[in-house]
Amino acid sequence: MPDNDEQQIRHLITTWMSASKAGDTATVLTLMTDDVIFLRPGHPPMVGKSAFAAAATPPPGTPAPKVDGTCDIQEIQVLGDWAYIWTNLAVTITPAGGAESMRRAGHTLTILKKEAGRWLLARDANMLAPA
Amino acid sequence: MPDNDEQQIRHLITTWMSASKAGDTATVLTLMTDDVIFLRPGHPPMVGKSAFAAAATPPPGTPAPKVDGTCDIQEIQVLGDWAYIWTNLAVTITPAGGAESMRRAGHTLTILKKEAGRWLLARDANMLAPA
Repeated sequence: MPDNDEQQIRHLITTWMSASKAGDTATVLTLMTDDVIFLRPGHPPMVGKSAFAAAATPPPGTPAPKVDGTCDIQEIQVLGDWAYIWTNLAVTITPAGGAESMRRAGHTLTILKKEAGRWLLARDANMLAPA
Repeated sequence: MPDNDEQQIRHLITTWMSASKAGDTATVLTLMTDDVIFLRPGHPPMVGKSAFAAAATPPPGTPAPKVDGTCDIQEIQVLGDWAYIWTNLAVTITPAGGAESMRRAGHTLTILKKEAGRWLLARDANMLAPA
């Protein structure tokens, strides 16, 4: 693990993207605070790690979609034990069973918090649109 | 002006909303940093106070639309000379000349910065959708 805050935050994002691609929800869940809040257009806030876990779990008998994407960090600002990042994110979601992929792209503005020496995602504004 | 950071930030938002309603772009421009960045879905980033000023100025001979709205602050977190706020924002834009109003509503996640003792808007994630 890098010893510099900015490098640790870059490492967090890389881990988030690779774990999402691998369908490894358990690892993604270790990268957020318990009280995390996800915001996006047209939806109520998704509040808490348990809400993320529920949304990431496909219904019984349903194979999980494949997720792939890229996340380019535009800005990192470290503010003590907090930080914010602005990213360009592009995500392709391919449903199991051959349905057509959906690609979404746009910006995120994300608040991170350092808890017990580890950077975690705390608030996330997702501005992705169909691409 | 209140002497407490949280109250000053609430005052900034109240001033922003009332100046927008009054069509007072000059005042709104005093409430943001020079390097402010506005992010929203489906659009490139709007970078800098001058870009905001240009976008807020109607073309010559065109009357400005009327803007009204409400902004309910859900969370304020002060981090030294930085802060973030999460809001529920609803905006109604009524074009001059009797065309139909557009109403948009949703969340914002906004980064604020204290410069020379004054809180200013520095980064804004706008997740409003047609309502």
